[in-house]
Amino acid sequence: MSRRGRLRVLGLGPGPADWRTPEADAALARASDVLGYAAYLDRLTLAPKQRRHPSDNREEAARARHALELAAAGADVALVSGGDPGIFAMAAALIEAAEAGDPAWRALDIEVLPGVSAMQAAAARLGAPLGHDFCAISLSDNLKPWAVVARRLACAAEGDFVLALHNPASKARPERIHDTFTLLRSLKDGATPVAFARAIGRADEKITLTDLRDADPGVADMATLVIIGSSETRWVARGAARPWMLTPRGYGARR
Amino acid sequence: MSRRGRLRVLGLGPGPADWRTPEADAALARASDVLGYAAYLDRLTLAPKQRRHPSDNREEAARARHALELAAAGADVALVSGGDPGIFAMAAALIEAAEAGDPAWRALDIEVLPGVSAMQAAAARLGAPLGHDFCAISLSDNLKPWAVVARRLACAAEGDFVLALHNPASKARPERIHDTFTLLRSLKDGATPVAFARAIGRADEKITLTDLRDADPGVADMATLVIIGSSETRWVARGAARPWMLTPRGYGARR
Repeated sequence: MSRRGRLRVLGLGPGPADWRTPEADAALARASDVLGYAAYLDRLTLAPKQRRHPSDNREEAARARHALELAAAGADVALVSGGDPGIFAMAAALIEAAEAGDPAWRALDIEVLPGVSAMQAAAARLGAPLGHDFCAISLSDNLKPWAVVARRLACAAEGDFVLALHNPASKARPERIHDTFTLLRSLKDGATPVAFARAIGRADEKITLTDLRDADPGVADMATLVIIGSSETRWVARGAARPWMLTPRGYGARR
Repeated sequence: MSRRGRLRVLGLGPGPADWRTPEADAALARASDVLGYAAYLDRLTLAPKQRRHPSDNREEAARARHALELAAAGADVALVSGGDPGIFAMAAALIEAAEAGDPAWRALDIEVLPGVSAMQAAAARLGAPLGHDFCAISLSDNLKPWAVVARRLACAAEGDFVLALHNPASKARPERIHDTFTLLRSLKDGATPVAFARAIGRADEKITLTDLRDADPGVADMATLVIIGSSETRWVARGAARPWMLTPRGYGARR
């Protein structure tokens, strides 16, 4: 413990290297140890002397503790997230682990480095669906009761927010995105624009545009970000190209 | 109109160049014409042959039309935003202008490039306040009725979302952030953690940590992002350093 360790929690962005910040790249390049979900580490070109510590997607707490142990032992640690580590990702897991663990861990040189989230990449591809007030909600009920998710969905509909839905479905819980659409159809106009944005920036990127009435929630998987409009959100046609999804800056201007 | 123009809407991030994506840098480097708020253009090093078109902060619609006119005439245009162009920024203004203008504008080669928003930079500095469901709300009532903002604040409180408040105050409307705190104090626990994150990443960066009861809303100006916790958000002490602001991944685990 005599050497001074360092820990950086960083985001790789949605996929392509040109959506990753130079700050994150610099922290990765100088790290002695790189920890993260195996599929994320596979995206990186590291030097032979850099130690890789891949782990399973669901082992966030254990990965965070491991990162803290390595930094406490003097390592220069990069703890890797997809997207932005601050949005439904590793920053919270790391701070929870620091809070619950060895008190010396909190005195380590720890910083969170911001990144581009999948939500923002999806919004950019779609046009400007998040151009106005919006809510980001994770549909995963692994760590919170479904009743909390349902209440938040209802409040977001009542407030006429645009919705950006994260973690819409997994093999372990395929039904929550269906529950979500059933609930929202009872609260919002069926003509509300909906976009399923899957794996944006990656080779298997796929965008599905629809509306709340006709949407097939079964399209969504864990790599999908679902954006559901407010009452103001609309499509802007542009000939043969995919229409833009626009939530205008003003509210009520067309009423 | 015989040459083929191009238009990229891009974000400079919150300030430092190492929070700007390589994709945005590449679009800036090859642009023939760069348009944006004068203070943003002043941050950039451009080549002598690149034409700068600075404009006032409030001239978003006119700036967007100008960008479309230049691209329609064959220019390679970079339309510059702070932060992420998709979050309360130029992407919506650009698409609104394309929708309202010359139909040929919609057929132009236009892309929105995502970036790191001020909200994410603030969250990274603070720890992990956006680690769970949150709402992003602009307090500006230039383009929407205050009643809409107030309803959204109330719904966000009812849904126990973390709140990320953009555009909290300006010289023209200094009172809305005070109205916001008065409303939220009637709906949320006074001990709820609050952070005012001003000019994050810039030389005059300033962070103020407080709680809903004791917060001085007068601290906020247009460069401030205000984050107000959910019932789960808490401080994590770390000795002499500023405590982390944490919204844990789970909900109700301590109840």
